[in-house]
Amino acid sequence: MLESGATLGPVEVAYETYGTLNADKSNAIYVCHALTGDAHAAGHHGDPARRGWWDTMIGPGKPVDTDRFFVICSNLLGGCQGTTGPGSVDPATGRGYGLGFPLYTVRDLVSVHRALVAHFGITRLAGAIGGSLGGMQVLQWVIDQPNEMAAAVVVASSSRLSAQNIAFSAVAREAIMRDPDFQNGDYYDTGRAPDTGLTIARMMAHITYLSEASMREKFGRRLQHGEEPRFAFDVDFQVESYLQHQGESFLKRFDANTYLYMTRVMDYFDAFADPVAAGANLEKSDTRFLLISFDSDWRFDTEHSREIVRHLQSWRVPVTFREIESPWGHDSFLLEIPEYDRTVAAFLERTATDLGI
Amino acid sequence: MLESGATLGPVEVAYETYGTLNADKSNAIYVCHALTGDAHAAGHHGDPARRGWWDTMIGPGKPVDTDRFFVICSNLLGGCQGTTGPGSVDPATGRGYGLGFPLYTVRDLVSVHRALVAHFGITRLAGAIGGSLGGMQVLQWVIDQPNEMAAAVVVASSSRLSAQNIAFSAVAREAIMRDPDFQNGDYYDTGRAPDTGLTIARMMAHITYLSEASMREKFGRRLQHGEEPRFAFDVDFQVESYLQHQGESFLKRFDANTYLYMTRVMDYFDAFADPVAAGANLEKSDTRFLLISFDSDWRFDTEHSREIVRHLQSWRVPVTFREIESPWGHDSFLLEIPEYDRTVAAFLERTATDLGI
Repeated sequence: MLESGATLGPVEVAYETYGTLNADKSNAIYVCHALTGDAHAAGHHGDPARRGWWDTMIGPGKPVDTDRFFVICSNLLGGCQGTTGPGSVDPATGRGYGLGFPLYTVRDLVSVHRALVAHFGITRLAGAIGGSLGGMQVLQWVIDQPNEMAAAVVVASSSRLSAQNIAFSAVAREAIMRDPDFQNGDYYDTGRAPDTGLTIARMMAHITYLSEASMREKFGRRLQHGEEPRFAFDVDFQVESYLQHQGESFLKRFDANTYLYMTRVMDYFDAFADPVAAGANLEKSDTRFLLISFDSDWRFDTEHSREIVRHLQSWRVPVTFREIESPWGHDSFLLEIPEYDRTVAAFLERTATDLGI
Repeated sequence: MLESGATLGPVEVAYETYGTLNADKSNAIYVCHALTGDAHAAGHHGDPARRGWWDTMIGPGKPVDTDRFFVICSNLLGGCQGTTGPGSVDPATGRGYGLGFPLYTVRDLVSVHRALVAHFGITRLAGAIGGSLGGMQVLQWVIDQPNEMAAAVVVASSSRLSAQNIAFSAVAREAIMRDPDFQNGDYYDTGRAPDTGLTIARMMAHITYLSEASMREKFGRRLQHGEEPRFAFDVDFQVESYLQHQGESFLKRFDANTYLYMTRVMDYFDAFADPVAAGANLEKSDTRFLLISFDSDWRFDTEHSREIVRHLQSWRVPVTFREIESPWGHDSFLLEIPEYDRTVAAFLERTATDLGI
């Protein structure tokens, strides 16, 4: 049963775990992934080229220390990496859901996480952590279930998208939905898929993940071939080549319908839309928050984090807030940045100590 | 003969003029338009709905005062509003040029302007003015012909695009060129055109023309229909509706190939790529510059203007530089902003006084 009232089932969930669940099941940390993430957050399955998307953050001796914590990461509801999503077969029709998949919310993402936590017999988490859309899930989780975790880490996230954020999402969706191969979302088994639209969406989004300064440093106006411009429309500047590669390699691992659903989930997210209800719950909360933003992030700039901090503090929820210096824009949350790593490590260490784990 | 060595001809130029050329032909101001502009800069041809794109700036008693100056504005080479461009018929084939149109540069745009100036029998301009790509033309003009105008006004412009600027252009071009109706640019007379690609390009570009703050004020998270979100993929937020309207209305007045050429002209522009040659000319210049930027412009932020100022000052070219406060982002250069208007008016008034016109 989804927040919208629609029902969906059965739901399969793909997940990975790292570390060992202790005897009293008190050392679990839930990792919530972002728009295009998956359950493979850490480790490399024996293939160093297949390192998890947050392998810098999660592992033995790392900030989310698997010598101490048992870490769970699942592919989100509506995803395309093992969890039931628009590309899954609808048992009612025997075909892919496509746009027949119900629209869901961040609250629904959390409901599925909670079912998995219960499946492990865990009644209370040591913590949950996520960046961007991942942070939204952590925030929503505590708002709705104020006593289910000791520590909540919300990185480079937002309690609600700005008009500019929604605008970028809207253009990405237009690119996908206007692609003639989109076929109203019913493209599975047709041998065609809205690859052009998804490539454009990814290329554009990628610009918003980097800062202007980091693009200048990484690419500047350098040319792909030699010193002299070609004066042509094909790829000439290095930044063009990079974006094209990002757009095209994305096709191999992502489904266009999932992109539509996940971006729409973010558009509609508004954690404090009902401040009275949120406040009534948060006042009862025994969760401690760590909020982190990056100074060059212009997708969810520091003001987005500050707004969350202000809300939480107004209900006397304990919050540590840090704006980290980093030139890498929104992408910083996925990168190894010493001050960032130290901040998360110290916060979780204190949590572990308090919990006696 | 273009900068690339390619030849092109004959070239037709669509232009408009406002005000009266004086007896000694000393009162002419050339207006250079930006990416999607045209020759219709001012007035309204008797139809108030058809006001020129810079009607706030140009007219009797306005900053570019047509009671005093004779104003010329032409559609750029490669344009789609009357001047020869990729949609024109190639005399060699009897069909539209499409991508057979040679790539040209800002220098080539200026060559065409100069031919039109000569056609009027004008040997020296009172000034030239332009915003964004328009400012690039003004800058290039003075670098190459340092004694052809008394005053140069460069607004919200750049001497060279940043990696992020090029990245946005690259994605826009991808959207157009990957549209199946693009047909390698040879879509004229096929009854199809890359409308989807051009719409996406325009929607995305439009986000970069506005500031985050102005989008927040104009749209926020307001919904298009009523109070309750629809939880669907069609237009729900006002900002989505606005962008879609921008994208679709653009199709009526613009050609996709022209969009490709104009964005590529901007990518390759690098006014001070050869600083020695530029400096040797600029040291001889008798042109006085006014540089203007807007504090909320993130497409060409103030640093782009400052870089031009530093170059000009290093060769002792007289420059007045003003960063104007405005919440409207890059689009500010097209809007009526009192401090902006006063600054341009004062600069041109001084020019007129010095020239005795």
